[in-house]
Amino acid sequence: MNTRFKIAGTASLALLAATGAALAQDTTAAAEAPQYALASETAYIFNTLLFLVGGFLVMWMAAGFAMLEAGMVRSKNVSMQCLKNITLYSIAGLMFWITGYNLMYTGVDGGYMGSVGPYAFDAVGGNALDTGYSTASDWFFQMVFCATTASIVSGTLAERIKLWPFLIFTVILTGIIYPIAGSWEWGAGWLDGMGFSDFAGSTLVHSVGGWAALAGALVLGARTGKYTANGVHPMPGSSMPLATLGTFILWLGWFGFNGASQLAMGTIGDVSDVSRIFANTNMAAAAGVVVAVILTQIMYKKVDVTMALNGALAGLVSITAEPLAPSVWQAVFIGAVGGVIVVFTVPLLDKLKIDDVVGAIPVHLVAGIWGTLIVPLSNSDATYGVQIIGIVAYGVFTFVASMVVWLVLKSTIGIRVTPEEEALGLDKVEVGVEAYPEFGQGSQRV
Amino acid sequence: MNTRFKIAGTASLALLAATGAALAQDTTAAAEAPQYALASETAYIFNTLLFLVGGFLVMWMAAGFAMLEAGMVRSKNVSMQCLKNITLYSIAGLMFWITGYNLMYTGVDGGYMGSVGPYAFDAVGGNALDTGYSTASDWFFQMVFCATTASIVSGTLAERIKLWPFLIFTVILTGIIYPIAGSWEWGAGWLDGMGFSDFAGSTLVHSVGGWAALAGALVLGARTGKYTANGVHPMPGSSMPLATLGTFILWLGWFGFNGASQLAMGTIGDVSDVSRIFANTNMAAAAGVVVAVILTQIMYKKVDVTMALNGALAGLVSITAEPLAPSVWQAVFIGAVGGVIVVFTVPLLDKLKIDDVVGAIPVHLVAGIWGTLIVPLSNSDATYGVQIIGIVAYGVFTFVASMVVWLVLKSTIGIRVTPEEEALGLDKVEVGVEAYPEFGQGSQRV
Amino acid sequence: MNTRFKIAGTASLALLAATGAALAQDTTAAAEAPQYALASETAYIFNTLLFLVGGFLVMWMAAGFAMLEAGMVRSKNVSMQCLKNITLYSIAGLMFWITGYNLMYTGVDGGYMGSVGPYAFDAVGGNALDTGYSTASDWFFQMVFCATTASIVSGTLAERIKLWPFLIFTVILTGIIYPIAGSWEWGAGWLDGMGFSDFAGSTLVHSVGGWAALAGALVLGARTGKYTANGVHPMPGSSMPLATLGTFILWLGWFGFNGASQLAMGTIGDVSDVSRIFANTNMAAAAGVVVAVILTQIMYKKVDVTMALNGALAGLVSITAEPLAPSVWQAVFIGAVGGVIVVFTVPLLDKLKIDDVVGAIPVHLVAGIWGTLIVPLSNSDATYGVQIIGIVAYGVFTFVASMVVWLVLKSTIGIRVTPEEEALGLDKVEVGVEAYPEFGQGSQRV
Repeated sequence: MNTRFKIAGTASLALLAATGAALAQDTTAAAEAPQYALASETAYIFNTLLFLVGGFLVMWMAAGFAMLEAGMVRSKNVSMQCLKNITLYSIAGLMFWITGYNLMYTGVDGGYMGSVGPYAFDAVGGNALDTGYSTASDWFFQMVFCATTASIVSGTLAERIKLWPFLIFTVILTGIIYPIAGSWEWGAGWLDGMGFSDFAGSTLVHSVGGWAALAGALVLGARTGKYTANGVHPMPGSSMPLATLGTFILWLGWFGFNGASQLAMGTIGDVSDVSRIFANTNMAAAAGVVVAVILTQIMYKKVDVTMALNGALAGLVSITAEPLAPSVWQAVFIGAVGGVIVVFTVPLLDKLKIDDVVGAIPVHLVAGIWGTLIVPLSNSDATYGVQIIGIVAYGVFTFVASMVVWLVLKSTIGIRVTPEEEALGLDKVEVGVEAYPEFGQGSQRV
Repeated sequence: MNTRFKIAGTASLALLAATGAALAQDTTAAAEAPQYALASETAYIFNTLLFLVGGFLVMWMAAGFAMLEAGMVRSKNVSMQCLKNITLYSIAGLMFWITGYNLMYTGVDGGYMGSVGPYAFDAVGGNALDTGYSTASDWFFQMVFCATTASIVSGTLAERIKLWPFLIFTVILTGIIYPIAGSWEWGAGWLDGMGFSDFAGSTLVHSVGGWAALAGALVLGARTGKYTANGVHPMPGSSMPLATLGTFILWLGWFGFNGASQLAMGTIGDVSDVSRIFANTNMAAAAGVVVAVILTQIMYKKVDVTMALNGALAGLVSITAEPLAPSVWQAVFIGAVGGVIVVFTVPLLDKLKIDDVVGAIPVHLVAGIWGTLIVPLSNSDATYGVQIIGIVAYGVFTFVASMVVWLVLKSTIGIRVTPEEEALGLDKVEVGVEAYPEFGQGSQRV
Repeated sequence: MNTRFKIAGTASLALLAATGAALAQDTTAAAEAPQYALASETAYIFNTLLFLVGGFLVMWMAAGFAMLEAGMVRSKNVSMQCLKNITLYSIAGLMFWITGYNLMYTGVDGGYMGSVGPYAFDAVGGNALDTGYSTASDWFFQMVFCATTASIVSGTLAERIKLWPFLIFTVILTGIIYPIAGSWEWGAGWLDGMGFSDFAGSTLVHSVGGWAALAGALVLGARTGKYTANGVHPMPGSSMPLATLGTFILWLGWFGFNGASQLAMGTIGDVSDVSRIFANTNMAAAAGVVVAVILTQIMYKKVDVTMALNGALAGLVSITAEPLAPSVWQAVFIGAVGGVIVVFTVPLLDKLKIDDVVGAIPVHLVAGIWGTLIVPLSNSDATYGVQIIGIVAYGVFTFVASMVVWLVLKSTIGIRVTPEEEALGLDKVEVGVEAYPEFGQGSQRV
C-alpha cells in the first residue's frame, strides 16, 4: 500500500505511458522517443523538487521540537534541551546514512529488514531517468522522518535524563530500531504485503517515537517532586511563546511531512493530491485546536494554551496516516478526535504517574494510534483488522526493543542524574551554559 | 482587474494557444492535441506549486503575527496572545471552508457576495486540466489570506479584550465580513467591474483587518492607565527579539503573499513577474526600515527598534496593492512613504487616545490606504478615482459591520475584562498558564 | 569555474541542444522549433523557481543571524542587535541594487570590477527565453548573499560598537567591498580565469564577512572587562534558545545557500546535483555538531551548547566551497574538521584578546578558509595553489579595505561607545527600547 520508494517511479512511468499513448494516436514511432524523454525529464524534476521542498520543511520541524521543548521545560534545563535537539538531528543524519536507509529500503522484499551498510547516492551525473527522482533527494526526505522520531523521545524524558545515555539511545533508535520497523511497511516488508496503510507515518514515525518515549519514561521514572502525596505538582514551562513558536514550526513542517509523502508531483493527479493533503492536514490541525480550546474552557473554566498547542499537534498526527482520502468533513472529525484525545490523555498519564514533560505520548503515541485505526473510514483499501495488526506489531517491537536498550543503559552507565543534580538543573550540571543567565535567578528557582 | 480565480486558467490557456500556434506552423492538426496536453499539464503543476509554496509561506505569517504580538505585549498577557493567534488561525481555516470561500468566489458575477455553503474541493482524481491548477491548492492559498486579516485585529486589541468575544468576532470576520468584502474585487464583483485594482490585498486584506481593529479599539477603549493626565504612559513590550523574529517571519511570508498572488507561473512571463514581485516587495520593505531608522534618529535622537520593525511592515503593506508594475525606484518610494506613515501615525493615534498595542492600524490600515491609492503611479490600468471609491467602500462596509458586531458583543457578553483582571494580566485570569513563570515575577510587575 | 550568471543559461542551452538533437533524429526541421521553445520554457521556469526558493531561504538566514546574535549578547544589548540585523539586511537590499549587482556582474571580463550604477531588471514582459532564468530572480538570489556577508560582521562587533558607524560600514561593505571582491570570481573576473573554485561562497561570502569582522574587532577593541589580569571574564549570552533557533534557521537557509548555487534545475542532471548538495550540506553540519559535542565533553567534562551550535555553522561554512563533488565520507570529514576548528579557534582568539562576541571569526573566516582549501580533495578541476591564491587575495583585499574604512570611521565620528554607555547597555543609550524590560532587572545587571 505504502512503500515509499517506488511510487514516484511508477507515477513517472504512468505519465510516460499516458503521454506516449496520446502521441501514438498521431505520430506513432517517430514522436514516441523524444516525447518520452521530455515528459519524464519534467516529471523527474518535479518529483525531486517535491522531495527537496518537503525535506527542508520536515528538517525545519527539528527546530520546532527544539522550541516546543525549550518552552515546556523549566529554565534550568533549557540549554540541555536545545543541545539534545540539535545533536539528535545530527545523529539521525549520520546514522540514517551509515545504516538506516539500507536497513529500511534495500532488499526488504516482504521481510523484516533490509541490508546492512552505508547508503551510497548515485555519483554526480549518475542519476538515471527511470528512477523518477534523484536518489539523494529521496535519501534526504526519508532521513528527516527518521530525525522526527528521535525528536519525539527527547521531550518526554526532559529534565532528568543524562545527556550521553540519551544520545546513545538516539544512535540505536535512528540507526536500527526505526529503520527496521519502517522497513516492514515503507520498505515493502511484511506489513506492506498484508495491506497495512500508513500514508505519512502516524504509526511508523509518531507512535514509534511515542513507544520509545514511553519505555524510557517507565525506566527513568518521574521528575523528583512531580507526584506527591498531595497530588500532582505542576512544573510550568519556562516560555509559552517559544512553545507556541515550536508548534507553528511543526504545523508548517507538516505540509512537507504529509504533502511530500505523496512522493510525486509530476502529473496533475499527483500535484492535486498534494494540494488536497495540504488542505486536509490544515483542517485536522485547526479542528484539534478548536476542540482543545472549547474542552478546556468547559472543564477548567480557563483555556489552557498548552492544550491548544498540543491539540494542533494531535490533529496533525491523527491525519498523518491518511491525509489524502478523507473528505474535509472527515479530516475535521479525525483532527477533532485528536484534540479530545489530548485533553483526556494528558491528565490520565499523570494519574498513572507517567511523567511526560511535553505531552509527547498523548500527541504522538495515542493520537498516532487513533489516526492509523481510522484509516479505513476514508480509504477502502485498508481494513480495521490489518490496521490493528500493524499498530500492535509496531507497538510490541518498538516498546520491547526500546525497553531493552533503556534497561541496558540504566544498568551500565546509568540514565538518570542524581536528585541534587536534578534540583540544580541539567544546564549547570552537564551543559555548563545557563539558558537565561540574567533572568529571575534562572535555575536557582523551583 | 484582479479577480483571483480565473487568471491561472487564462494564463494556462494562453500558453496552450501560444504553443499550439507555434506548432501549427509546422504540423497543424496532428501535433496540436498532444502538445496541448503536455504543455498545459506542466503549467498546471507549476501553477499549483505556486499556490502551495505561496500558501505555506503565508501560513507561516500566522506565526509571525504571534511572535510580533507576543513580543509587544507585557509578559502578563503573552500566553493569551499566543492562544489567540493559534486559535484565530484555526478558526479562519474552518470558517473559510464552511462559508468563506463560496461567499467570496462562487457566483458573484459583478455583485456583492457569492453563494452560501461549504466549499467542496474536487474529489481525488477529479481535478480537470482546464482549470489550470488544483482546486484544493487555490482554496489553501485563499484561506491563509483570510487568516491574515484576523491576525491583524488581534494585535490592536491586546491586553484588555476577553478571549471569547474576540474569538466570536473572528468567526464572523473570517466567515462573513472578509469574504463578502473580498468578493467585490477578487470574486469578480462590482468593484472589479469598475476597474479597482488591489493586486495582493493592501485594501482587501490589510485595511480590512485594520478597519475591524479600529472599530474594536474604539468600542473597547484604551488599556487602563495608558492615557493619563500626565500624558501617554509607555507600556513597553516584553521581548524585542520575539517582535523582531515576528517581523522577519512576516517579511519572509510576504514573498508568498505578493509573489504567489500572480496566481500562475506556468509561463516565462508569469514566473518572471513573480520574480519581479519578490524584488519589489523586498525593496519596499527595506526602504520602510531605512526611513523609519533615519526619521526616529532625527526626531528622538535614538532609533526606536519597534519603529524599524513597523517600518518594514508598512513598506510591505504599501507595495502589496501593486508589487508588479513599479520600477525599483517606484517600489523604493512607495515603501519609504510607508515608513514615514508609521513614524507619524503611531504618535497621532496616541494623541487621539486610540490604543493600538502593536501599531497595527498605522501599518495595516493607513499604509494599506496609501498603497492602494498610489497604484495608478505605476499601473496605468488603474485610476485614482476608482481607487478612492474602492478604499472608501471597503472602509465603510468593514468599519460599520465590525462596529455592529463589537457593539452587540459588548452589550451582550461583554468584551472587556475588569480593571482588576487587567492589572493581574489575562494569562492568570483567562488562560491559567503564565508565559514566563520564572522570570522577574512575571505578571506581578507593571 | 564558478561564475554565477551564465551557468543557468548554459544549462538551458545544453538542454535545448540535447532535446533538439534527440528530436532531430526523427523529425528534423519540422519539430525543432516548437520543441526548442517548449523545453527551454520549462527549464527557464525551473531555474527561476530555484532562485526564488533558494532566495527566500537565504533571506531567512537574516533572521537566523538576528536570533543567534540576540541570544549570544547580554540582555542590555539585545534590542540593538535586533535593530542592526534588520537594518543591515535592508541596507544590503538597497546597496546591491544601487551599486552592488553591476559592480559584481556586469562587464567584469577577467578584470577586477564591473560597471558602476543601479541595476535595471528587465521590464514587465521583457524577459527573454535565452537568458535561461528571470533577471529579477537572479538579482534577488545574489542580493541575499550580499546581505549574509554583512550579517557576519554584526555579531563579532556586538555590545560596544555605535550604531551609525556600523551602518555606514555596512553601506560600504555591501555596496562596494563585497561586490568588487565577488566580481573576481562569480563575476567572471581574474580569479575565475585562473581556475579558483568557490561554489557557494566559503571565501566569497563567509571569509569576506570574517575578514571585515576581524578588522573591525582589532580597531574596536574588546568589551570592557572581557580580558582582565585574572584571565578571560565570561560574558554569557542572554538566551540559549534564541541562539539555538538562530542556528536552526541558518541550517535551513543553507539548503538554499548551497543548493540554489547550482544555479539551474531545468535538467535531471542539475536537479540531481541540487539534491546531492542538500545531502552533503546536511552531512557536514551534522558532523560539525557531533565533533564539537564530543570534543567539548572530553576537554571540559561538560558539553558546551554554544560550541555545538557553532560546530553546525562551521560544518556548513566548510562544505560551502564545494558541496557537490564530495562523496558522503568526504562531506562528513570536511564538516568534522570544521567542528574541530571551532572548538580550538574560539579559545585561541581569546588568548589573542580578539573579542568576537558570537564566534563569527572561527566559524566564517577560519572554517571558510578550510573549506576553500580542501576543494581539490573532491574536485579535480581545482588546485591547491590557486585555492591559496584566492584565499590570500580575498583576505588581503577585504582586510585592508575594511581596516581603512574602520580607521576612517574611528578617526572621524568614532566607532565605540563610552565605557559608561557600554556598562549601561546599548539598548538604553542608542535604541531607547529595552529588550526585556520586565525580566531580572534587564540591563541593570552585567
